[in-house]
Amino acid sequence: MSLQESAPSLAVVGVTGAVGQEFLSVLSDRDFPYSSVKMLASKRSAGKRVAFDGREYTVEELTADSFEGVDIALFSTGGSISKEFGPRAAERGTIVVDNSSAFRMVDGVSLVIPEVNPEAMKGIKVGTGKGALIANPNCSTIICLMAVTPLHHHAKVKRMVVSTYQAASGAGAAAMEELVQQTREVLAGKPPTCNIFSQQYAFNLFSHNAPITENGYNEEEMKLVKETRKIWNDTEVKVTATCIRVPVMRAHAESVNLQFENPLDENTARELLRKAPGVYIIDDRASNTFPTPLDVSNKDDVAVGRIRRDVSQDGNFGLDIFVCGDQIRKGAALNAVQITEMLL
Amino acid sequence: MSLQESAPSLAVVGVTGAVGQEFLSVLSDRDFPYSSVKMLASKRSAGKRVAFDGREYTVEELTADSFEGVDIALFSTGGSISKEFGPRAAERGTIVVDNSSAFRMVDGVSLVIPEVNPEAMKGIKVGTGKGALIANPNCSTIICLMAVTPLHHHAKVKRMVVSTYQAASGAGAAAMEELVQQTREVLAGKPPTCNIFSQQYAFNLFSHNAPITENGYNEEEMKLVKETRKIWNDTEVKVTATCIRVPVMRAHAESVNLQFENPLDENTARELLRKAPGVYIIDDRASNTFPTPLDVSNKDDVAVGRIRRDVSQDGNFGLDIFVCGDQIRKGAALNAVQITEMLL
Repeated sequence: MSLQESAPSLAVVGVTGAVGQEFLSVLSDRDFPYSSVKMLASKRSAGKRVAFDGREYTVEELTADSFEGVDIALFSTGGSISKEFGPRAAERGTIVVDNSSAFRMVDGVSLVIPEVNPEAMKGIKVGTGKGALIANPNCSTIICLMAVTPLHHHAKVKRMVVSTYQAASGAGAAAMEELVQQTREVLAGKPPTCNIFSQQYAFNLFSHNAPITENGYNEEEMKLVKETRKIWNDTEVKVTATCIRVPVMRAHAESVNLQFENPLDENTARELLRKAPGVYIIDDRASNTFPTPLDVSNKDDVAVGRIRRDVSQDGNFGLDIFVCGDQIRKGAALNAVQITEMLL
Repeated sequence: MSLQESAPSLAVVGVTGAVGQEFLSVLSDRDFPYSSVKMLASKRSAGKRVAFDGREYTVEELTADSFEGVDIALFSTGGSISKEFGPRAAERGTIVVDNSSAFRMVDGVSLVIPEVNPEAMKGIKVGTGKGALIANPNCSTIICLMAVTPLHHHAKVKRMVVSTYQAASGAGAAAMEELVQQTREVLAGKPPTCNIFSQQYAFNLFSHNAPITENGYNEEEMKLVKETRKIWNDTEVKVTATCIRVPVMRAHAESVNLQFENPLDENTARELLRKAPGVYIIDDRASNTFPTPLDVSNKDDVAVGRIRRDVSQDGNFGLDIFVCGDQIRKGAALNAVQITEMLL
């Protein structure tokens, strides 16, 4: 039982979405202590009932007054909602853990993967009466850096080339439903319904639907470039990424090529990854068994495999790896709840 | 009408497979001239009927005598069948265009993409009475080099990092059927049938099922590394690849990161690709329209997009691109038929 009078009061914002629902599931799984919890969402969802920890709650409409008496608020809404309500809640004393991209690159806002840069949380605690904004990194960044950071700490990554294989869940619950619907339609010889995505997703793949920025990269790719620098507190690391949406439900995969400053051989890399928190290795060459999205779906930990010396680089200055992680869990809700746990 | 008495006599070996069938379709589409055609396959498929150019043929069992009087034989069988029958046919005067990996890296065997290295075909002609073995490169190599070679000729590729998104068709017609069957099963809440692949393919992806070699790369990846060097006749170019099977039917996609010896800006790259034979550009940033496997399915040409200066490299010494090509067509049958056309 994690309902305790002395524990912090919570609010979950965007509670009816895919990540919002996962917030509840992870909070409950981890017996997060709380004295009360407010279920908040847009007007459209207000009045719906959600279950949490054996009780039923009525979803309330998010308003400026919603954060009265709330110690910690977990946000998973669009960036514009976060921008409107996040700073105001923080000013009134609430610690906001925000899953949107709204504040990630803002100076002074902590961008945190607890296993990677816990030091960025320094001084932010519940019970001090001081509010704060903390940003949850983008799912692709979290999953990538969970595996790459232990290697980076050992050999310093100079340059990283990432190609992603991203699941439907990154675009929300409705996108997952559309993938199922489209697949049924295509199998039945019917034209696919395209509401969320502008094109056929079933048995197809396409460049990530985030807007393209001025340099030709899409925003999803630039998140990997910029967030890596901020999380590692390393302005020099070079990152490039190509982000692709594949017809998979809820876990992302990433092919990562690494160039190091210092030598790092395959076996040392394996050793480092074996010890890394939140990471496990699936790398059996004999049976051709490596990480897949299904392996990590609904799981907390990130799987890494295909660990091999990069044949395109001399000596032990390069590695290729393949990483899979649950987009909704470690890529979003779990990471946010882990941040929240550090506030206690 | 391409049936002409003075034209070469043909054999299609492995005619009942996915690529074998595509050989027939491409030969017919391109009005390839022939005086006769033998339809060959394993004992199991002998006696089946296949349609070609408005006629019906009976599939004959492949034997040592099958190539008597055959000028050109198109092989699409496993490597062991090619090894058994290819050299013997060539010795008897047949020009063999082989789609397997059996001879690709053998010294003296031409490995040809007609748009890329036609010079490798020098001296091989039908009507000289001399047989030969010509190898069709691996599908991923063909699709990649169709887009990259025009850039390479301009700025010399120093290093290339490729991540593939490969379709079911590369594992044959039965694999495509298994993907459909598994998808139906998963949608119905049933466990997926795994005959061709050892694990769930529907709504999942996995490291390419080719055997892993000693260096930790799988054979599919090493084909990209080695074939690129042979086709470009460049022993220095550095290539690394990660090959992944995605739940798509018949076209491969590849994310390609390029490091050049000489500068090459985005606009020049676009200009070079616009003029490249067998390549077309889909690269509309405003509408987020880029190549997809479905765009190129059943098409001859390779599509390229997401052309952008690599932000992880200084100046104009790097590009990221995304390439899609039909695995069965340009990745196999079309390329082989184009080679065959050069023999006339």
